[in-house]
Formats: sequence, C-alpha cells, structure tokens
Amino acid sequence: MSEIRALLREDLQGRTPYGAPQLEVPVALNTNESSYDVPAVVVQTILERVAAVAPGLNRYPDREFAQLRTALASYLTETTGVTLTADHLWAGNGSNEVLSHLVQAFGGQGRTALGFTPSYSMHPIISRGVGTTWVDGLRGAPSGIFDLDLETAVTQARETQPDLVFLCSPNNPTGTALSLEVVKAVYDAAPHAIVVVDEAYAEFARPGTPSATTLLEGRDRLVVTRTMSKAFAFAGVRLGYLAASPELTDLLRLVRLPYHLSSVTQAVALAALEHADTMLGMIKVIKAERDRLVEGVAALGLAPVPSDANFVLVGGLADAGQTWQALLDQGVLVRDVGIAHHLRITAGTPEETDAVLAALAALDPSHRQEPS
Amino acid sequence: MSEIRALLREDLQGRTPYGAPQLEVPVALNTNESSYDVPAVVVQTILERVAAVAPGLNRYPDREFAQLRTALASYLTETTGVTLTADHLWAGNGSNEVLSHLVQAFGGQGRTALGFTPSYSMHPIISRGVGTTWVDGLRGAPSGIFDLDLETAVTQARETQPDLVFLCSPNNPTGTALSLEVVKAVYDAAPHAIVVVDEAYAEFARPGTPSATTLLEGRDRLVVTRTMSKAFAFAGVRLGYLAASPELTDLLRLVRLPYHLSSVTQAVALAALEHADTMLGMIKVIKAERDRLVEGVAALGLAPVPSDANFVLVGGLADAGQTWQALLDQGVLVRDVGIAHHLRITAGTPEETDAVLAALAALDPSHRQEPS
Repeated sequence: MSEIRALLREDLQGRTPYGAPQLEVPVALNTNESSYDVPAVVVQTILERVAAVAPGLNRYPDREFAQLRTALASYLTETTGVTLTADHLWAGNGSNEVLSHLVQAFGGQGRTALGFTPSYSMHPIISRGVGTTWVDGLRGAPSGIFDLDLETAVTQARETQPDLVFLCSPNNPTGTALSLEVVKAVYDAAPHAIVVVDEAYAEFARPGTPSATTLLEGRDRLVVTRTMSKAFAFAGVRLGYLAASPELTDLLRLVRLPYHLSSVTQAVALAALEHADTMLGMIKVIKAERDRLVEGVAALGLAPVPSDANFVLVGGLADAGQTWQALLDQGVLVRDVGIAHHLRITAGTPEETDAVLAALAALDPSHRQEPS
Repeated sequence: MSEIRALLREDLQGRTPYGAPQLEVPVALNTNESSYDVPAVVVQTILERVAAVAPGLNRYPDREFAQLRTALASYLTETTGVTLTADHLWAGNGSNEVLSHLVQAFGGQGRTALGFTPSYSMHPIISRGVGTTWVDGLRGAPSGIFDLDLETAVTQARETQPDLVFLCSPNNPTGTALSLEVVKAVYDAAPHAIVVVDEAYAEFARPGTPSATTLLEGRDRLVVTRTMSKAFAFAGVRLGYLAASPELTDLLRLVRLPYHLSSVTQAVALAALEHADTMLGMIKVIKAERDRLVEGVAALGLAPVPSDANFVLVGGLADAGQTWQALLDQGVLVRDVGIAHHLRITAGTPEETDAVLAALAALDPSHRQEPS
C-alpha cells in the first residue's frame, strides 16, 4: 500500500470510486439520462440568462438562491397540486448534495440511517460518508426484492428507531413507485426520524401515482427530494432540490458550504424552469419507449420489472455481467446494478429501443436463465 | 426548542449559519471579491463555451473534468514556474468543497486537524463537519497574532501529531504570507499529516513571495489549494482547486459526489482560463489600491497589518463592532472578523478606496483605541 493511501480514513481503505464507466458507445442507456438534447428555445434562454449574469460573476452568488427557490416551488405546485412556497424548497449541486446536507444535519457519528435495499446506492455511501451507521433493511415483499412491503418496513423502522429513513419512489434500480400508505406508516413508526422520499424519477410514474409532496402538510419531518437531471433532461447542470417544512429547510443552512450554488447554475436552472412545459414535453415519448421496452423484453422471454421510471430492470438473465459485456460488444451500454440475473436499461429514443431490443434478440440462448 | 431543531446533530444545536451579511450598499468591501466586472471579451468567450455545451446538458458532465484539470495545470505552471500536469490537479465548487474533500478523505471521527488561529474560519467548520477533532493552534509570533512563528508551529505539530494541518498563505484575515521555511518545518514535524497550504490570495502577494507549489516535488502529503474567486474575479462561478501529488488527487475520487462539477461550471471556468492574462490584469491595480489603503489608514493613525492579499486588516479601533456599524451608516460595508479592535477591508477600485478612507476619516475620535 502506498504512503498516501495508508493515510486514508480507515473505512475508505481498499474502496473504489462510485460511478458507471463513462464509455463512448453508439447507444448509451446506462445512467438514466434523457436521450433528447436540450431544445433550441431553451438553449436560447439559457444564453440570455448567462449573458445577464456573466459581467457580474466577480461577485458571490445569492447565498439563499431566493429566485430559484421560488421558481422550484412554482414548478412543484403546478405539477403536484400541492401549494408550496420558496421556504419549503432547498437545492444543491445535484440531489446527491441535497441528500448530503440532510445527512450532515441529522445523521453522523452515533446516528443511524435505514434504507431498503436494493435502492439508490448513494444513500448508504452519503450516510456513511459522515459516519452515520447504515442499516440495510429488507424489502421483503411477496414478489421478492421489487416491492417494499408495508409491514416489513414498519417492523424494521420500529426496531431500528433510525434518525433518518430513505425511501425511494419510483425506486432505483427496480423501477416501481411506492404506495403513500407505506410512507405514512414508516413516518409514524419512526417518530424521531427525518423521512426522505427520493422522487428523482417521479415525473415518469404511471397515471394515478401521487407524489409524497401531498403528505408534507402536517409532517414536519418528511422530505421529498427531486432532481432536474432526469425528467428535466438536465443532468449536465447538476441541480437537485427538495421540499420539506420551512423549519427543516432553514436548518440546512447550518451545513451547506457558503455560496454552494453558483450564479451560473442558478441562472441556467431558472432558464429551464421558465420552459418547464417544453423540457417536460419529451416525458410522454420516453414513457412510451419505456413501455415498449417492457413489452419487447417480455416478448423475448426475459422478465422485466414493472416500471414507473425512465428505465426498466430486466431479469431472467443467466449471468448479468456476461450479458452486459455481450451488449457492449454490440455497441449498447446498459447498467449492471449488482442484482443477480438483472440489468438496468434506460428508456431513450425509439431508435435506441430498437437497438437494445435487437441486441438482446441477437444474444445466444445461453444468456437466458433456466426456468427454476 | 422546535421539534425539528431538536433532531439536529448535537454539535449543531444552537449554531447560526456561516456567512457575512449580504446587504445592498454603495461600497461593499466585506467579502474580498473583485470590484471589477468580468471584461466583455471574457463574457463573449463564456457565452460561446456555454452555447457549445448547452444542447448536450441532457448528458452528465465529464466526471473527471479532464480538460479543466489540464487548463488549471497550465495556469499554475505558467504563474508559479512549477511544472504541473492534469493529474496533479483537482477542483470543486469553490475551494470550500475542495477542502471538504480533503477532510472527508483524511479526517473524520477519531482524527485531528490542526490550524493556527486566526485564520480562514471555514477550516475548523469543514473539519468538524465530518467529526474531525479541531485543535486551535497558537500563532505565537513576537508580533502577536499576525505572523506564524516557525518554532511555535513546529512544537504544536509535534505535540498534536495531527492527521491534517491547515496553513494559510497569505493568511486570511490577517493578510500576511507565510515563509516556505515554516511550511517545510511543519511538514517534517507532522510525518503522518496531510499538510494543506491555503493559497486563496496567492496572486496578490508582494514580490519575492514564492508559492508552496514550489515545494510539491518530493512531498506527497503536501496540498496547495487555490480559488478562482479572488484574483480571477470569479466568485460567482464557485471554482476552487488544488495541486498535490497524483497519488493524493486520485484518492479524492473516493469522496467527491459523482459528477460534482457541472458541464456549465467546467465550460465557464475554461473560458476564463483561456483569458487568464486579461482576468489577472486587474491585479496590479488592486495591489496598488491595497497599498494605498495601508498607507491611508496609517495616516489616519490606525494600525494596518502588512498585506499580501486583496484586503487589509486594520487595527487600532476602540470597538470593532461600533466602527463596523458607523461605516455601514456611511454606506461602506466592511468585515468584522471577530478580532478585537480590528476590521478587515477589501481593496477595490480607487473610488472605493477614497470612500472608505473618507468614511474612516469622518469617524468621531472615540473610535480610536487609546495607545496602550
């Protein structure tokens, strides 16, 4: 071991950095980005907004990002039907930073966070990063790993008495949304916990799936996190946000680094929010491709998990790693999320759906899992 | 205490958020920003670079920000005379984030960081934020708090055996640069420590003040942090960076949040680096104003501390808080950094120097400290 590596914090020893391989391939369906470029009309507004702030970049940004908080509140109010104001909102450089603020404020050494695996893999990484004890809860549903069972979740929340609970709806990497009954029951079962519902993919949910923002009223410990990376097709901008009680968002000012959101990030995010209808216009198309992907892989004899997101977890593979490589050999990059016999595939353009279905169809039958 | 506040991490209870008041005043000399707008030619390149990346913002940024690291390495090589390559460089959303990566990797619960107060107040905040024990070292120089004495520093480094040491040169808020002999001696006295030299203000140093980058060769545990906020007049962009051994920068990938630097931030920083000569052109003017400020306050019978930065710490005041308010009443905002009898004043335009000197001259004699 090298001299410097030996000085690393003990729990980082031997670890490798988080992240999917960034490879140049014809069809990249591995990180749940939008396959659709930012529309020209939005690019125009981005440039206008950047032109307006650029001469004054010698000055620090608005530390409280007041205008952006107002715009995010309006967007959530319009899309979820829940009336929210600027003081309910908080934002960071990606939802990872927003999650990190929550963990810094309410987690840390001697405190416990509970999540239900498999879920978004950054939840435990961010929690442990500041010394929080992570409890890997079981989803325990009759259907296996893919749904979170209410009784199972409540029992574990009662037993763990966590300081933080992470729920994820729609759940990444499995794809299904969570019943609000589960959120309410977990909230009540963990009376000292900040309960985080990660709704990074909420805009892709199937009809009739309400947002946990509808539960915020009267639940001061509930937090709903969102991102502009997915439905907003804005992964390159790194803008994540959350909605919670004004009392809770105010406390996050204690742990954010000063001026954490640059003037340019604020300007660019405001430009996109101004064009929310346009930016969200592709969602219908992406959802149609997701549904076609579900049907297409099922027709190939594979086992897709029902999805409320812009991706599909595909089961029924003999060896996920081997199939991942075989698809990459055909120029199609998908994600091996570490669940045996499964790969995660992002829903992109019709041409990308064609390409991934063709690549799967071209696989040798040995890639299929034997029926058990 | 409210329900939510009671759930905060114990060490955050009762704390208030970091940050100078953001007030609208005619003369703002409180945060060491540049008073000079970003030049039109640079704004033009910013817009070109943003236009180039905007359509592709649906994709995640280059997680390793390779082009930016190369450009930062070239800039340091040109300005410090030390040959550095991309793998020596690392960057984040402000130097605070870069410092935070260092503390996350090498600090934390059960580990110790040593700094010499008064210095940059974020060093202890960031260290404690992840559970690191902070040791408030003494500067102990014959001249008081303003210079860091070599023997005093070495003794404390030997006694503490810290995991991290923070040095600051030029030191904020006192303004004076550190002899490289001190850096070398502290490095040798703390053989298991990451030694950080915070050079946020290095470009403003008086002639003959070498950068600690000249010490990097053969010192794998040494880190020099920099920022584009000060000399680069780019506070609104939030771009901090560091130079260290490639082995050390590689380990920071374990703790950064994935894709922490947005595509827009990378593009805008590259635009400014392309115009480094222009962006740095104002330094000569600012240094002249700094020197005029030193002379001007001395002529008023006050006690300026010698400065290698773009600010001057002014002593000789009866009550710093009262003088801060009296200056604000005249439309001049400076910084009360919590050092008795002292205020910190940023060097700005000639007009701003005139204004702050006039405001100081107009003060009632009761603002002066009695000679001891």
